[in-house]
Amino acid sequence: MPLMHPDRLLPSDPAQRAIARRLYAEVSGLPIISPHGHTDPVWFADNENFGNAAELLLHPDHYVFRMLYSQGVSMEALGIGEGGGAADPRESWRLFAERYHLFRGTPSRMWLDWVFAEVFGLEQPLSADSSDHHYDHISATLETDDFRPRALFDRFNIEAIATTESPLDSLEHHAKIRAANESGEWGGRVITAYRPDPVVDPEFEGFQDNLQKFGDLTGEDIFSWQGYLAAHRKRRDYFASMGATSTDHGHPSAATADLSAGEAEALFKRVIADDVAPQDAELFRAQMLTEMAGMSLDDGLVMQIHPGAFRNHNRKLFERFGRDKGADIPVQTEYVHALRPLLNRYGNEPNLAIILFTLDETSYSRELAPLAGHYPALKLGPAWWFHDSPEGMRRYRSQVTETAGFYNTVGFNDDTRAFLSIPARHDVARRIDCGFLAQLVAEHRIEEWEAAELAVDLAYNLAKAAYKL
Amino acid sequence: MPLMHPDRLLPSDPAQRAIARRLYAEVSGLPIISPHGHTDPVWFADNENFGNAAELLLHPDHYVFRMLYSQGVSMEALGIGEGGGAADPRESWRLFAERYHLFRGTPSRMWLDWVFAEVFGLEQPLSADSSDHHYDHISATLETDDFRPRALFDRFNIEAIATTESPLDSLEHHAKIRAANESGEWGGRVITAYRPDPVVDPEFEGFQDNLQKFGDLTGEDIFSWQGYLAAHRKRRDYFASMGATSTDHGHPSAATADLSAGEAEALFKRVIADDVAPQDAELFRAQMLTEMAGMSLDDGLVMQIHPGAFRNHNRKLFERFGRDKGADIPVQTEYVHALRPLLNRYGNEPNLAIILFTLDETSYSRELAPLAGHYPALKLGPAWWFHDSPEGMRRYRSQVTETAGFYNTVGFNDDTRAFLSIPARHDVARRIDCGFLAQLVAEHRIEEWEAAELAVDLAYNLAKAAYKL
Amino acid sequence: MPLMHPDRLLPSDPAQRAIARRLYAEVSGLPIISPHGHTDPVWFADNENFGNAAELLLHPDHYVFRMLYSQGVSMEALGIGEGGGAADPRESWRLFAERYHLFRGTPSRMWLDWVFAEVFGLEQPLSADSSDHHYDHISATLETDDFRPRALFDRFNIEAIATTESPLDSLEHHAKIRAANESGEWGGRVITAYRPDPVVDPEFEGFQDNLQKFGDLTGEDIFSWQGYLAAHRKRRDYFASMGATSTDHGHPSAATADLSAGEAEALFKRVIADDVAPQDAELFRAQMLTEMAGMSLDDGLVMQIHPGAFRNHNRKLFERFGRDKGADIPVQTEYVHALRPLLNRYGNEPNLAIILFTLDETSYSRELAPLAGHYPALKLGPAWWFHDSPEGMRRYRSQVTETAGFYNTVGFNDDTRAFLSIPARHDVARRIDCGFLAQLVAEHRIEEWEAAELAVDLAYNLAKAAYKL
Repeated sequence: MPLMHPDRLLPSDPAQRAIARRLYAEVSGLPIISPHGHTDPVWFADNENFGNAAELLLHPDHYVFRMLYSQGVSMEALGIGEGGGAADPRESWRLFAERYHLFRGTPSRMWLDWVFAEVFGLEQPLSADSSDHHYDHISATLETDDFRPRALFDRFNIEAIATTESPLDSLEHHAKIRAANESGEWGGRVITAYRPDPVVDPEFEGFQDNLQKFGDLTGEDIFSWQGYLAAHRKRRDYFASMGATSTDHGHPSAATADLSAGEAEALFKRVIADDVAPQDAELFRAQMLTEMAGMSLDDGLVMQIHPGAFRNHNRKLFERFGRDKGADIPVQTEYVHALRPLLNRYGNEPNLAIILFTLDETSYSRELAPLAGHYPALKLGPAWWFHDSPEGMRRYRSQVTETAGFYNTVGFNDDTRAFLSIPARHDVARRIDCGFLAQLVAEHRIEEWEAAELAVDLAYNLAKAAYKL
Repeated sequence: MPLMHPDRLLPSDPAQRAIARRLYAEVSGLPIISPHGHTDPVWFADNENFGNAAELLLHPDHYVFRMLYSQGVSMEALGIGEGGGAADPRESWRLFAERYHLFRGTPSRMWLDWVFAEVFGLEQPLSADSSDHHYDHISATLETDDFRPRALFDRFNIEAIATTESPLDSLEHHAKIRAANESGEWGGRVITAYRPDPVVDPEFEGFQDNLQKFGDLTGEDIFSWQGYLAAHRKRRDYFASMGATSTDHGHPSAATADLSAGEAEALFKRVIADDVAPQDAELFRAQMLTEMAGMSLDDGLVMQIHPGAFRNHNRKLFERFGRDKGADIPVQTEYVHALRPLLNRYGNEPNLAIILFTLDETSYSRELAPLAGHYPALKLGPAWWFHDSPEGMRRYRSQVTETAGFYNTVGFNDDTRAFLSIPARHDVARRIDCGFLAQLVAEHRIEEWEAAELAVDLAYNLAKAAYKL
Repeated sequence: MPLMHPDRLLPSDPAQRAIARRLYAEVSGLPIISPHGHTDPVWFADNENFGNAAELLLHPDHYVFRMLYSQGVSMEALGIGEGGGAADPRESWRLFAERYHLFRGTPSRMWLDWVFAEVFGLEQPLSADSSDHHYDHISATLETDDFRPRALFDRFNIEAIATTESPLDSLEHHAKIRAANESGEWGGRVITAYRPDPVVDPEFEGFQDNLQKFGDLTGEDIFSWQGYLAAHRKRRDYFASMGATSTDHGHPSAATADLSAGEAEALFKRVIADDVAPQDAELFRAQMLTEMAGMSLDDGLVMQIHPGAFRNHNRKLFERFGRDKGADIPVQTEYVHALRPLLNRYGNEPNLAIILFTLDETSYSRELAPLAGHYPALKLGPAWWFHDSPEGMRRYRSQVTETAGFYNTVGFNDDTRAFLSIPARHDVARRIDCGFLAQLVAEHRIEEWEAAELAVDLAYNLAKAAYKL
C-alpha cells in the first residue's frame, strides 16, 4: 500500500469523488504561488545543503514538537534550545518516531508522510522500527546536490515565493538571489515582504534599539513622528525594489485608529519614552495600521493583517527557549468595531488591497465574510495556522463563501518555514477546494465547468492577482 | 441542461438523496407562509406593473449590489442612490451580468437563477453575452398583466405574507388591500407587523420628530411616560385590526431591562431630552423590549427580536446613499445575561410568544437552543440574513435541533424585499430541511414517517402556528 | 421494524459505513469506563429496587422535563418539586408520552429508545397510545430482582463508575459498597470523586455553614487559611481511600489566579466574612483552582474543570423548585487568559493531569485544542452536557483533533444521573467516534489498522489511563 493514496482528502461520496477527481486533475500540476511564508532566504542565496533529518524536519517545526511536548517529551531531549545542542539528533528523531501515532488525524501527519514518500522516496511509515532507517536515509540524501535548496525549489515547481523580513533586515540574501537571477545562474523567484512589527509594536523586545537601528539604516530623524513615517516609506521602497509586493502585520488584535496628525504625534512621543502604557502601545499599533494602509495606497504594496495570537503564552518556556516554540495560542478576535477607523478612512478605495486573516473561526461567517463582501479594499486570506488543515479549510469555505463568494478570497498561503512541506500543503489545499467544489456541483449549486474554472482560480490565479505576482 | 436541476440542494449521498426526494415531494407544493418580510404593500394595493429588470432585481437587492461594490463597481454605475438616476439601467444590468461569476456559491445565485428560469422562462445563464437578452426579456415581460404584483402573488401560491411597518405608517395600502379582499376584487392575504424602532430607539434618525408624529397620530400625551406607553397600545391595536399578528424589534443588542416604574419614567425623561447618553439609549431600548413583552401578553401579538447588526458601518456610503446599502455587519451578540431581566419577568408565561433571531451563529448551540429548550415563552426564528443560505441553514439545524428540538423553532422566514425571489427562498429552505431530515433517517435517528411529518411542519405548520396565521 | 437499527448513527455514505461497521464491531462489547457522573451511590450500597417509570426516567432527567416545560407543561403536572408529589405518576408519564415527538432529533430520544428496547424489551415506540403499556411494563419490571441496581450494573458491563460527592459527604454508601466488594458479596467498582464547590465557592448556598461542617469533619481550624487548606488535603486523602482518582470543579468561569501566600490569606479572610464582593468570590474560586492543582501534583488526583454554566437562570423556577431543574444555560467562556496563572505555575508538569471541559464550542479549535496540544499538564474532556449528542460529538472531533490529536483527549464521560441510559450514551459515543474514524479512513487520512487501534483507545483505553482507573 503506498503511503500516499491518490484519492486522499477527496470526499468519499461516490458522486462527489468522481467530480473532485476530475477537478483535481486540472490543478494538481499547476505551479506553486507562495505569496506569504517564512522560509529563510539564505537557503536560496547560498544554496548550501540542509543538515540532518532532525535539524530539517523536527527542530524548526513547532507543529511537531509542540505535540511531542504536550505528551511529556522535553525540549532538551528533542534537541531544541540552548541545552538542546547536547542531544544526539538520531536519538531526538527516535523520540519523534516512537510517538508518530500522536499525529493521527493532524495535518502534520499528512505533510510529513508526503515529505517521506514524495521527497525522499521512503515506502514505510515512520515508527519506532523505521526510525533509524528514515533518519539515515533522509540525512544521507540531504547531502546530495539534488536536495540543495535551489534544486528542491525547482523540483517543487515554485513560480514565486515570498519570505518575510523586518525593516531592519539588510536583504543581503535577496540581493544575492537577484544577482543570481540576473546572471542567469538561477531563475527562482524569491521575494521579500515588509513586516515592520519590531519597529511598530512598542511592546516588541528591544523596540527602542530597533528604532535606533531603523534610523541608522534610513538616515531619518527616527525619534520624530515625521522622520519615523519617512523611514517607513523609504524602507518600503527598498523592499519593493527587492521584489516585495506586500507588507505583513502581526498584531495581538485587529484594532485600528485614525487619529489627527497632532494626536498621532503626541502618541508617538509617548511610545518612544520608557514604560509605555499598554493602552498606548495598543493605540499606536492601531494607528500604524491606518498609516500603513495610507502608504499602501501610495506605493501599491498589498497589506496583510494577521491578528489574534497570544504570543509566548508559556512563560517558563519563553524565558528558557525564546519565541516561536509552539506556545502561541489564538484568542477571540473582534473585527467589526476594530477595523472601522481604518475602513472609514480607506475602505472604499478600490485600488487598496488589505488581506485579513483570523485565528478565530467564529469571525468567518459573522464578521469577515460580511466585511469582505462589502468593502472594495478588503479581501480574506485563507484558513491560517491551526486552521490550515482539511477540516479547517472546509469550515473556511463553507462559512465564508455564501456571503463573500470565492472572488473576495485570495487562494492559498502556506505560511510555513518548513520548506519541504510546501508542495504538500498546497496539495492539501487543492484537494480540499476540489472536494468543496465537487459538493457544490453534486448538489447542483454550480455547474461543473464553473467548478473547473474556480479550481484553477483558487489554486493559482487568485493568489497571483491578489498579491500582484 | 436546465438552469434548475430537480435534485438541487439535496444531499448527494445516494441513501440520503432517495429519502430527501420523497420528503421534498410532499412539501414542494405547499402554500407559502411568509410571516416576516419587507415587501412593499403598495405593490399589492395598487397592483401597478413593476419597472425594468435593473429596477426590480438589482437596485433593491443589497445582497447583489454589495457583492458588486466589493469588487470595485460604483453605486452610481449601478444606478443606486441620488446620482444613480443618471445611469442607463440596461448598462447597469450589464455590469451585473458581466460579473455574475462573483455569485458562484452564494444563495443569491440560486435565487436569481430560479427567478430567471421559473418566473421569466429564461433558459440561458446570465452572462455578458446574455445580458441584453435577459434585460429586454424581463423588462418586456414585466409590462404584461400576468406579471403584476397580485398575479405573481397568486401564482406563487402565497397563503399569507406579512410586511413590516413603523407605527408612524398610515397603513393606507393595507386598508386598500383589505377593501379589495372584502369586495372580492382580490383574495391575497397581506398583513402588517408592528416595528416600532423609529419611536423606541433614541438613536434612530429623527427620534424626537418621530415621537411628535406618534403623539399626533394617537392623540396621546407622547412626552409623558404613560402617554407614550398608551400610544404604543393604541397603535398596536390599530395594527392588529389591519391583520398584524406580530411585532418586530431590530436592536443593536439583545439587552433587556426590568426597571421599576419610577426608574423607567426617569429614563424616559432623559431619552426625550437632547444629547442622549449612549448608555441611556441602550437601557431604554432594553426596557422597551420588556414593556413590549408585557403588551404582547395582553394583546396576543407575537414578539420578534432581531438583534446584532451594526447598521451603516460604512460612514461615507451612509452619508451619501443612506440606510440599507449593504453595509450592515453582524456583531457578536450575547443572550444569556441580556435576556434575563425580560425572562425573569415573563419567561414562564406559556401564552407569550417571543421569537428570537441571531446573526451570531455561535449562540445557536451555546445560548439560544438551551434557552428555547427551557423557557415556555421563547422560540427560535430561522437562520437569518447572511445565514439564510444552504450552509447557514444546515448549521442552524445541526446546532439547534439536539437541544431545542424542532418544535421550539418556527419554520421559515424569507425576510426579503425581493418579492420575486420569495418562492425560491422557501424552496431552498424546504430542500435543505428535507436533506437534513433525510440524514437523520439514513442514520436511523428518526423514522421516515416522522421525517415526513416534520417536513410538513417545518415547511408550513410551524410558521402558521407560531405566528398565529 | 426494531426500535434500534443496528447501523444507527453510522455515516450513510456506503464507503464510510462499511468501515464504521468493522470498527464498531471491535468496540461495541468493551466494558464501560464511566469516570465522571452523577449516579447515586446509595443505589449500589443498598441495592433497593427503583420506583416507577416516572420516578426513574422522568423526574430526575432534566434533559427530558426541560423540553416538556418549554412547551408549556408545568413542573407540577410532571410530578416534580414539592407540589409534584400530588401528581399521579401514570398521568405525568402520559404527558410525556403524548409529547414524545418533541424529542425527535435529540439525543434524549435515542437514549430513551435504547432504554425502552434494550433494558425493558419494549417493541413499540412511546406515544399516547402506548403510554400506559410502557408505564405499567416498566414499573412492574423494576420490581423484579434482575432490575435492581447491582444486577443492572453487572448487566451493563460497567468496569468502573465514579460518582461525585461534596467534601461534606460521609461517603457511607461508598464504604458499604467497599465492604460488599471485600466480602465478595458484590464485585462492582463504584468510586467517588472530590467536588469541593460547596466549600470553595463563596457564592454557594450556605457557604459559611458548609465551612463550619468542613471544620467539624476534619478537625481543622477551618476559618484560618492554613487550616482550610489542611482540611482539603485531609479530605482528599479520605476520598482517595474510598477509591477517588479525581477531583471536579464546577465554576462559572475558567478563571485561575496565582496569588502570593499573603494575598491569598487576606482574600480568604474577606470571603469568610459576610457580604462577599462578587470580584472576591471570583478571585477566590480562581485561586482555589491553582491550590487544587498544587494538591493534585502532590496526591496524584486527576483534576477536572467544568466551567461556563450560568446556573439557575430562571429565578422563579429556582425559588420554587431549587437547583438542577433544566434552567442552567451555557455562557461564553474564555480560557487563554483565564488559565494562564495556573498554567504558568503548573502547566509544564508532566505528572499533573488537568482535564478541561467546555460548554462553549467556539473554544474547541480556537483555545482548547491549541492549549492541550502544547501544555503537558492539560487534556481535553469530551463533548459535555448539551453537546453530548451525535452532532455535538462530531463537532468536537472535527474541531479538536487536527490540533490536539486524539491522545490529548480522554475518551468518553457519560456525566449522568440517568443510570439506565449509561450504556446508550457510551454506545452513541462509540458509534460517532467510529463514524468519524471511518471518514478519516475513507478519505485516506489514516489507515484502517490505525483507526481500529484508535477506536479501542477512544472507547476504553484513554479514559482508563487518563483517570488512572
